Amino acid sequence: MNQTPFHGVFPYLVSPILPSGRVNEPVLAQLCDDLIAQGVHGLTPLGSTGEFAYLSWPQRQRIVEVVVAAARGRVPVVAGVAATTTAEAVRQAQALAGLGCDGILAILESYFPIPDDGVLAYFQAIAAAVPLPIVLYTNPNFQRTDLSLAVIEQLSHVPNIRYLKEASSNTGRVLSILNAVEGRVQLFAASAHIPAAVMLIGGVGWMAGPACLVPRQSVALYEFCRRGDWTAAMALQRQLWQLNQAFARYNLAACIKGGLALQGYDVGLPLPPQAPLPPAGVAEVRQALQAVGALAA
Amino acid sequence: MNQTPFHGVFPYLVSPILPSGRVNEPVLAQLCDDLIAQGVHGLTPLGSTGEFAYLSWPQRQRIVEVVVAAARGRVPVVAGVAATTTAEAVRQAQALAGLGCDGILAILESYFPIPDDGVLAYFQAIAAAVPLPIVLYTNPNFQRTDLSLAVIEQLSHVPNIRYLKEASSNTGRVLSILNAVEGRVQLFAASAHIPAAVMLIGGVGWMAGPACLVPRQSVALYEFCRRGDWTAAMALQRQLWQLNQAFARYNLAACIKGGLALQGYDVGLPLPPQAPLPPAGVAEVRQALQAVGALAA
Amino acid sequence: MNQTPFHGVFPYLVSPILPSGRVNEPVLAQLCDDLIAQGVHGLTPLGSTGEFAYLSWPQRQRIVEVVVAAARGRVPVVAGVAATTTAEAVRQAQALAGLGCDGILAILESYFPIPDDGVLAYFQAIAAAVPLPIVLYTNPNFQRTDLSLAVIEQLSHVPNIRYLKEASSNTGRVLSILNAVEGRVQLFAASAHIPAAVMLIGGVGWMAGPACLVPRQSVALYEFCRRGDWTAAMALQRQLWQLNQAFARYNLAACIKGGLALQGYDVGLPLPPQAPLPPAGVAEVRQALQAVGALAA
Amino acid sequence: MNQTPFHGVFPYLVSPILPSGRVNEPVLAQLCDDLIAQGVHGLTPLGSTGEFAYLSWPQRQRIVEVVVAAARGRVPVVAGVAATTTAEAVRQAQALAGLGCDGILAILESYFPIPDDGVLAYFQAIAAAVPLPIVLYTNPNFQRTDLSLAVIEQLSHVPNIRYLKEASSNTGRVLSILNAVEGRVQLFAASAHIPAAVMLIGGVGWMAGPACLVPRQSVALYEFCRRGDWTAAMALQRQLWQLNQAFARYNLAACIKGGLALQGYDVGLPLPPQAPLPPAGVAEVRQALQAVGALAA
Repeated sequence: MNQTPFHGVFPYLVSPILPSGRVNEPVLAQLCDDLIAQGVHGLTPLGSTGEFAYLSWPQRQRIVEVVVAAARGRVPVVAGVAATTTAEAVRQAQALAGLGCDGILAILESYFPIPDDGVLAYFQAIAAAVPLPIVLYTNPNFQRTDLSLAVIEQLSHVPNIRYLKEASSNTGRVLSILNAVEGRVQLFAASAHIPAAVMLIGGVGWMAGPACLVPRQSVALYEFCRRGDWTAAMALQRQLWQLNQAFARYNLAACIKGGLALQGYDVGLPLPPQAPLPPAGVAEVRQALQAVGALAA
Repeated sequence: MNQTPFHGVFPYLVSPILPSGRVNEPVLAQLCDDLIAQGVHGLTPLGSTGEFAYLSWPQRQRIVEVVVAAARGRVPVVAGVAATTTAEAVRQAQALAGLGCDGILAILESYFPIPDDGVLAYFQAIAAAVPLPIVLYTNPNFQRTDLSLAVIEQLSHVPNIRYLKEASSNTGRVLSILNAVEGRVQLFAASAHIPAAVMLIGGVGWMAGPACLVPRQSVALYEFCRRGDWTAAMALQRQLWQLNQAFARYNLAACIKGGLALQGYDVGLPLPPQAPLPPAGVAEVRQALQAVGALAA
Repeated sequence: MNQTPFHGVFPYLVSPILPSGRVNEPVLAQLCDDLIAQGVHGLTPLGSTGEFAYLSWPQRQRIVEVVVAAARGRVPVVAGVAATTTAEAVRQAQALAGLGCDGILAILESYFPIPDDGVLAYFQAIAAAVPLPIVLYTNPNFQRTDLSLAVIEQLSHVPNIRYLKEASSNTGRVLSILNAVEGRVQLFAASAHIPAAVMLIGGVGWMAGPACLVPRQSVALYEFCRRGDWTAAMALQRQLWQLNQAFARYNLAACIKGGLALQGYDVGLPLPPQAPLPPAGVAEVRQALQAVGALAA
Repeated sequence: MNQTPFHGVFPYLVSPILPSGRVNEPVLAQLCDDLIAQGVHGLTPLGSTGEFAYLSWPQRQRIVEVVVAAARGRVPVVAGVAATTTAEAVRQAQALAGLGCDGILAILESYFPIPDDGVLAYFQAIAAAVPLPIVLYTNPNFQRTDLSLAVIEQLSHVPNIRYLKEASSNTGRVLSILNAVEGRVQLFAASAHIPAAVMLIGGVGWMAGPACLVPRQSVALYEFCRRGDWTAAMALQRQLWQLNQAFARYNLAACIKGGLALQGYDVGLPLPPQAPLPPAGVAEVRQALQAVGALAA
């Protein structure tokens, strides 16, 4: 297990699936290798961008195996667990830990809304089931049941719940969370946030799909922020933001898969009935990538 | 396959799961047998009330086997298919058809919103995959991606898409759908609707959790409606409505499992982290059942 | 004051305003006269369709004066009061009562949400301020603060709070309200509801914009319902529903003003920046009116 | 008219109204004088916190007169215009300009949603009606019709539309707006945003209720941001944020009026049926003020 605290740029990996339903392993391994070469600080398979909600368990398992193998211990791998029942979440967490990942991104799916004590119990059970650091995922836009500030505060006292990924788009909520957890939990931003703004108010990095497309630029932005060079950070941030805007406008997986295809990765399309990135989206992503030097003009 | 068109009262069955994760088969079989004895017109495993979203595939499969065996061809069994990908939905539909059910209740789950042509393709693929009648499920309250009126109209031309279960609570939408499908598709109400009102405007029955608890009274209400005795129908409907109100206020599965426990069925609790019916809910359901003679005072 | 309990068809009147800002009095008076000649049971100025939210107090006042004068006591006039503060609502109610209207339609506007006891106090104050019957208006789609079932039950004990207009589109809520008020309050449907369905479950009529366009047909539908001839009621209801669908799709005022223009009434356009009915809407309304004989083909 | 571009801290003033309905002029004038003495850069009567939606036109008019007189030209006064019709908004803007204010905060209220070209026309008409700088107000949480990014971009080309107050809580949207208007419009944050974060990404200040309670501390925060001392800015920002959290949890006017009462200003309660700040809120505001030295412990 990687011992340095998680920090920096963790791209949310796409899940390249062949028409047969098998994982396109060489493409996924190559993408991981290239991202590490560009300096990213970790890899995050099975997030929203990774279409976890559209994958079978064997597909999820294989993806984590491929990513762990490709990482070769150079950067930590934080794999997504997502379930509606506590029992299934515990089973997934233990299985993924057994595959050698370095942390668990814990997601609560729900059909009926769950009261706060159910939410608490769900995440506590995952944390108790594995000896790995847990990253809480809070996303009111896609999760029917979200984590309240009170639940986050309670979970921050669990020793191996050490990180939280915030995806609400409400930056004020990020500061409220940071004030509430008093350093017991470190915060990563999602693509709905401006990374530089979250770094300013106390975040330690970001876990997001766009970093798959602009890893080098993302790492540069992270370094400016770490160094406190906010003028340089904001100059770069303004340019990079266009990609997040495209990301917010289109299906996340379609957007990143579409951009990677432009960069030459054969990652395929989002799984049907999801739609591929429409032509207007391709043009927008192409332009955004060219503007920051992530694609030849 | 049952040849009479589906009509009347189809209870949404709960899914009794033992702490071990196994299906409580004797309890489920007994419930099916009792409901048929009370005159229900069909059985519907793996609906919302059946906690489909909380069950593994082996659990879903076993539940359908038990229900089909218990029905012994006396009433049709319409089993739920629910997936995020078209490929998985087709796989489930074929597997359930192979287990001997008489119809498929088709549910689209989604994480990212799906545009209309994706929704269309999803349901068309299910209909093409099996030789059974399909019941479309439209529920804007729980489904992130719902069926628009335009999509419903298009799907109504597929020969084996013959029914639709409407769960929006907007009765005007029911009439708009009936006007649009011009008799090609028959409509069942969900528990969010007043059955008598939906029957008046042209529905053919209802598929709903509360009918598990009040099967005899539901069948009586159906008969009044069929006969056009609206005065008697409304007198009974007013009494029965209290149960639907409780149903709307609490978690559906918790509510029906709680009521069945009062009636002596050992169906267990909703799967964690869902909460069981709270004491106030138990009191409310008890009172509603006693008021209509479905529980001894 | 008209002594018969309110019942039947109350068209929501549009507010014809000249470019100068003055009320187009002859057109409004003519419309009232024609509606009464067609058999409507009451008139309702200053509802949603009447653009109350877009009118100054002098305009509102003049509209009520014109309608009261045109009605000549033949049918009751129920005028809308709408305010954010209790003090202003009381002032309006007393002023309108002084103009000779027969009832008050009471609307709570709000900018910040108001807790239940504030809602209660607002409507109690209006009821205490005038010796007229009060119609509560509950509309979760347009009112930021709506009336909860608990508040409605409490208000139903105020002697002159005798009616409620329900505009939620949720017919089950209508039945829940009727069960809660136990006959102390009578219920009118809004255009979001199917009048025949609401009459079946216990309503006494409807207050709605479309009745301006199809008064004769609305009265016929009401008579079928009153007589318990539900077969004839539903046959007519199915035809009339198309107009409510158009109504739901477009701005209410634009839709009714557009339809009245087709029928030869010079009612003008909705007040800017509201948009007039677009060409597709005009075609849809024209077709719906022709289909029920409310416009020459 | 004040010629320096608007920038810095503009407290949203509360509206102290006596039980008689008259403006409590001495208290309002004193508050303005004290805020100016603490260094605020401008005053903003008739914003959300100022309960504009609860005030009659004579009350609004008097409030602006009192504030303009109290300011004595020392800081600019930006007064709120809020209407549902274009005609009424123009009338208000001209009247307020005639009272000597230095800018107009333009708010679109609506009952029915308004399409983009109606929104555009509304704000263009206000800008054309007065020779003052216009501040657009965009607030998806309280305004039923908000300004889209496309509308904002178009309005940014109108010469006297020079500022925008953003109240969405989505900081990413702030950056998207700044990228779109390319310097033609300057941006102020509302209380839903973290001022330091908005300053980092390019804002010029904030217009918000909490600044009434902590003017000195707000000015200090502004100065740190202007100087680029982000470490000091964030240290102060973390302390001040607690007040914004209270603000988000309670009715805005109740919260600021409650805090000012603790500081000795006799500003009265929010206008009924709004509720006063509950005891828990008073305690929370008291604690937040004491923590930053804005109230004696």
